[in-house]
Amino acid sequence: MREPILLTPGPLTTATATKTAMLADWGSWDSAFNDITARVRRNLLGIAHAGATHVCVPLQGSGTFAVEAAIGNLVPRDGKLLILVNGAYGKRMARIAEVLGRPFLVHETRDNEPADVARLAAILAADASITHVGLIHCETSTGILNPLEAIAQVVAKAGRKLIIDAMSSFGALPIDAREIAFDALIASSNKCIEGVPGMGFVIVEKTAIAASAGNSHSLAMDLHDQHQYMEKTGQWRFTPPTHVVAAFDAAITRFIEEGGQPARLARYRDNCDALIDGLTELGLKLYLPRAIQAPIILTFHAPASPNYDFQRFYQGVRALGFILYPGKLTEADTFRIGCIGAVDRAEMLQAVSAIARVIREQHLLA
Amino acid sequence: MREPILLTPGPLTTATATKTAMLADWGSWDSAFNDITARVRRNLLGIAHAGATHVCVPLQGSGTFAVEAAIGNLVPRDGKLLILVNGAYGKRMARIAEVLGRPFLVHETRDNEPADVARLAAILAADASITHVGLIHCETSTGILNPLEAIAQVVAKAGRKLIIDAMSSFGALPIDAREIAFDALIASSNKCIEGVPGMGFVIVEKTAIAASAGNSHSLAMDLHDQHQYMEKTGQWRFTPPTHVVAAFDAAITRFIEEGGQPARLARYRDNCDALIDGLTELGLKLYLPRAIQAPIILTFHAPASPNYDFQRFYQGVRALGFILYPGKLTEADTFRIGCIGAVDRAEMLQAVSAIARVIREQHLLA
Repeated sequence: MREPILLTPGPLTTATATKTAMLADWGSWDSAFNDITARVRRNLLGIAHAGATHVCVPLQGSGTFAVEAAIGNLVPRDGKLLILVNGAYGKRMARIAEVLGRPFLVHETRDNEPADVARLAAILAADASITHVGLIHCETSTGILNPLEAIAQVVAKAGRKLIIDAMSSFGALPIDAREIAFDALIASSNKCIEGVPGMGFVIVEKTAIAASAGNSHSLAMDLHDQHQYMEKTGQWRFTPPTHVVAAFDAAITRFIEEGGQPARLARYRDNCDALIDGLTELGLKLYLPRAIQAPIILTFHAPASPNYDFQRFYQGVRALGFILYPGKLTEADTFRIGCIGAVDRAEMLQAVSAIARVIREQHLLA
Repeated sequence: MREPILLTPGPLTTATATKTAMLADWGSWDSAFNDITARVRRNLLGIAHAGATHVCVPLQGSGTFAVEAAIGNLVPRDGKLLILVNGAYGKRMARIAEVLGRPFLVHETRDNEPADVARLAAILAADASITHVGLIHCETSTGILNPLEAIAQVVAKAGRKLIIDAMSSFGALPIDAREIAFDALIASSNKCIEGVPGMGFVIVEKTAIAASAGNSHSLAMDLHDQHQYMEKTGQWRFTPPTHVVAAFDAAITRFIEEGGQPARLARYRDNCDALIDGLTELGLKLYLPRAIQAPIILTFHAPASPNYDFQRFYQGVRALGFILYPGKLTEADTFRIGCIGAVDRAEMLQAVSAIARVIREQHLLA
């Protein structure tokens, strides 16, 4: 049987050319590998239109490692981080701040409500000790899109710094550093750029990285040192995941050839539309209003039938070649399905057919 | 041109079957991937004969991330770590303790002197506040082998806990948890097991992992939470480097089929002998006495000729298909050459021939 297609929020299905880029071994000290690292960093800055203002610091590990590194490096011990929470990844950022002992507070909205811009302005006006604001651009818990542009304006106007967790949006949704002020933008290799998992990166504003020396709570996650060393030697400070970096480089090349962020967004929008239209026709209900649903990962209410059991449903769809993702909400029984990866409308239509078949076979019609 | 052979201490040349294991995508939540994770953890415990006494906690990132995690999790904030240093990796462990704010002290021997067992016993006897001892089993700076068995005995007799950085020895040199007491043994995917880089692991004694709750300085590096979550769900707490884990699994399978640690050591010994004999015959001098030289990575004095320039020498040998490694000593001009990876005597003899040719062409004979 062909390997299943991952309709998950990353790791996701990658192109064959991305995976075959891993069929060589590189010396982490060798110039051939340094060239790959330099190209990856340069291209990532280019995607954010941040070449003039920011630097790109890659980091070993998953995206959460990069988020922790950004908080630990950029929020000084006497700073204070306001985190806008409407899902699990916002909560995780708060947990990071707590473990690292960085002063923080949380403004939470419901998981189906975007971050509240007016409320943010009021909180910043009322508390002069807040130095940084942390935002999850697209909250993977539901797939909700938060209003980045408006939030960035409010934060900049209040003279505070913005840290954007753009894990599941970077590369798909437009983020232009010439128009949006941010101190840090965090993402990883295995999301909308469609690489394999194993590294994250932080796009850091130049004065912010310079000012961060000595802030880090960790040696391995010290972004300032990683950046200094990389600028000086072209190498990573500690052993890089060479094959993952090479695959990411191949994925970025494919991203650029496809037409960059606008083309990637258009494909994901089309995937999203095909899924929503197809699954809605089957009687499934999208959890979020369509206006605040990003075309990255969709949350659907579970079929209302008493016959529904997620594990059985998942295994049924898996046997037909598609891997779904469990829901992450406590208040509603849901499942998730991703629009991202090296897949297009054809795979989405096949996935809808597979889900339709399982709904029939497992008698999940209400 | 064929890709060069890496005679470096990892990343190293891996088997084709190890790399082709990365030609699929896995859902990090899916049982097919959970099975891989479980098998890797079980087999790593088996290699250390630690299945009855320890647990294996894998961690995203390079080996240094795993070392930092071990220190941060296992040395409590009111503990005290004595680090035996005779090279850069011992110094790095001390730097980690410093950044993490863990009380520590260092006992340093010269880079060509193994850790001093009698002196260790005296230090432990004199300072009751020392709770843990940190040791680099094979110090990659030179390739020196430290006397693990004798050190472990002294540490156990003094009632202290041992943390072993076995990064470059695990899988090649015998380490038997039934005979050697340790709280933690740290290694990574891209050393003597011959996987690709991107993950480390810590083999932790069962009561030590249980006692470590709340110690971690980091969310992402919290080994206690990683272990708890993995035991409960079979999954990694944050996105795993799926392709790296699959390649590691393939490499472990190959390791077992080759005959496990004794066979791996025999091949590396043979590689080591071929290199030392061949390069000595060319007039190059091994830095360490052969008795304390581990068959992992060799340090040679640079050719004594005034014509010698490491970059030119490196590029000359690279053009013939072999990647060397720079020296890491401040007091002597050296270069390093690895014995490890999916290579045997044939490649070693070719490497010796290549070095001989470059020595002739660059007029490096004294």
